[in-house]
Amino acid sequence: MKFPSRISIRLGVNSYDILLGSGHLARLGQEIKRLQLGTHAVILTNPTIQRASGLTRQAAASIRRAGFEVKSMTIPDTERSKSFTMLGTVLSRLASWDGPGRKLFLVLIGGGVVGDLGGVAAGIYRRGIPFVQVPTTLLAQVDSSIGGKTGIDLPHGKNLVGLFVQPRLVFIDLEFLKTLPDRQFRSGLAEVVKCAVIRDAALFRFLEATPLSALRSSTNRLGWVISRAILVKRWAVEQDEKETRSIRTLLNFGHTFGHALEAATRYGTAYTHGEAVSVGMKVAADIALRLNKIGDSELEKIQGLLRHAGLPQTVRGVKEADLLKAMAQDKKWSIGRNRWVLPTGIGRAIVQTGVPDRIVRLSIRSVLER
Amino acid sequence: MKFPSRISIRLGVNSYDILLGSGHLARLGQEIKRLQLGTHAVILTNPTIQRASGLTRQAAASIRRAGFEVKSMTIPDTERSKSFTMLGTVLSRLASWDGPGRKLFLVLIGGGVVGDLGGVAAGIYRRGIPFVQVPTTLLAQVDSSIGGKTGIDLPHGKNLVGLFVQPRLVFIDLEFLKTLPDRQFRSGLAEVVKCAVIRDAALFRFLEATPLSALRSSTNRLGWVISRAILVKRWAVEQDEKETRSIRTLLNFGHTFGHALEAATRYGTAYTHGEAVSVGMKVAADIALRLNKIGDSELEKIQGLLRHAGLPQTVRGVKEADLLKAMAQDKKWSIGRNRWVLPTGIGRAIVQTGVPDRIVRLSIRSVLER
Repeated sequence: MKFPSRISIRLGVNSYDILLGSGHLARLGQEIKRLQLGTHAVILTNPTIQRASGLTRQAAASIRRAGFEVKSMTIPDTERSKSFTMLGTVLSRLASWDGPGRKLFLVLIGGGVVGDLGGVAAGIYRRGIPFVQVPTTLLAQVDSSIGGKTGIDLPHGKNLVGLFVQPRLVFIDLEFLKTLPDRQFRSGLAEVVKCAVIRDAALFRFLEATPLSALRSSTNRLGWVISRAILVKRWAVEQDEKETRSIRTLLNFGHTFGHALEAATRYGTAYTHGEAVSVGMKVAADIALRLNKIGDSELEKIQGLLRHAGLPQTVRGVKEADLLKAMAQDKKWSIGRNRWVLPTGIGRAIVQTGVPDRIVRLSIRSVLER
Repeated sequence: MKFPSRISIRLGVNSYDILLGSGHLARLGQEIKRLQLGTHAVILTNPTIQRASGLTRQAAASIRRAGFEVKSMTIPDTERSKSFTMLGTVLSRLASWDGPGRKLFLVLIGGGVVGDLGGVAAGIYRRGIPFVQVPTTLLAQVDSSIGGKTGIDLPHGKNLVGLFVQPRLVFIDLEFLKTLPDRQFRSGLAEVVKCAVIRDAALFRFLEATPLSALRSSTNRLGWVISRAILVKRWAVEQDEKETRSIRTLLNFGHTFGHALEAATRYGTAYTHGEAVSVGMKVAADIALRLNKIGDSELEKIQGLLRHAGLPQTVRGVKEADLLKAMAQDKKWSIGRNRWVLPTGIGRAIVQTGVPDRIVRLSIRSVLER
């Protein structure tokens, strides 16, 4: 079971490579050197990653060995860090280390918070400086570090401020996953399942056939699964870099309801993003069944895989009205003229607008526990 | 003497038109409608413009007549407004007016401050919303509103945060110039002279032959002069949108020294941007003479036109050491391996690196009054 060590994202002048491996952080500095990203590296990471392993030190050492000056800064590992204030702090730190003859670039070692906030900072400091994503969670490795979506939150909503800006390199080291808590691993797996359902039946079958413990413990299996999810993401991003067509929208399978669930539970600890997306996939699959896009056996297959991955398919203590309200507030998915990503089989999906409210309600009720 | 009413900037998917006219604000709403920019317009302007004429009201009325909801907000007309804090205020205002079914766009009615800050806000709100530039100063009409450079300042330096993001429309109304103070008009003229020297000998000759009062008082003359300067800017921007080649750098003629003078005088009222650029053009032309890029007669022609435009060619009360220090701090133009835009004739210029320090010093001394 081999997996590719390099996956290229072709986006014209914004093209870049994703390097995939295990225990290969010693190569990071040379890869950065080859790309001529600048002279001074600023590593942005979080205290958890910095403490949990020697990996950030290895990364920093590799970059230093390649001849770069390196400075590190950490931001707390919580969604609250994705704030306008924190963005200002990061930009100021960049500015105070900058100077004549220096060319700064950012190395973002962390999960979605570090990647999203750091991407915004890199995108607007001096009208854009290069940045490298070193995603440390499964979610970031298969999803958020790839494709150029960056964002911070405002009190009015999540990811309201940001830009599309592609990294110059995504460097994935599977070693980071060893210290990842189980719940976070499963949460990342939800995005993998998503990719399998919308586009990759072979990945779907492999996930079905592989016990979770066998997946986590094998670098080769893990690398293969991650590479397949990345290839699905690449397929969407290459055709639709800025989500102006509906191709990239397919990646939102499970997210219509998922975002609403996160909002209705105030982005608390009740549901991680991946768990919310998991329930959302069940809702969307249920809608697809009611609209005859898929049959019972396919719904059962999807539900079976979610169960197999240890992911939830029901919610407790959330009111239907709150979910509907949150969906109506969501600009992309407002319920009047709603837009859903629906599976039409295993490995196939479509974007469907105008699903009748009645059907939406029935499918939502199907996941609400009393 | 006719001038084009529409100049197209061709930048692939980022292409847009510049509309040029006098007293044509009534058309603004229809043009915005044709471009399908959104549903709700947010006008960003400054109190001076809002008070000085009925023009912002005309603009708002035209947009309303075309069927859009309109909200206005003003920011103080000073460089201090180009702050991270003010950016946060604008973004929050956008977010609080936003909602399901709404598609916001920005209309920036003002000079460089409104255009630069508003451009950043439009570029990063919801990963980019459309915006229209309605430049109200000569400087903004011929220079800052075109080409997609946006920016705000940090305590560490000017324009340290921003991005390249093109407007969807630039709408120029010459009426705005009627209330423009004389000093500001001449300051804008400095950028016009710059364009003439680097690329447009016919514009240079016309400016030489036209008294300032005759220029200001004639819509046709003014429109023609502005259109010629825009065509020079277009020529550079179309070939080099993000200043990655040295073509766009040519627009920095006069700015090497100009930026240093502004920094050395702490961006105070002693020298406007255009005045600083004017002295900077004298310095650059002086260097060009010493390097035999131009002859005495061409230096005299350039100096003659600056004099004719009522623009300064010398500075008082500034120390040579402070200017050299400011230039050394300027990342683009650091004096070790410096980079200068030098005229090689009237209507021609080159980017020259590594001008000997001795020559730089001599040319700087040539503008220092005791």
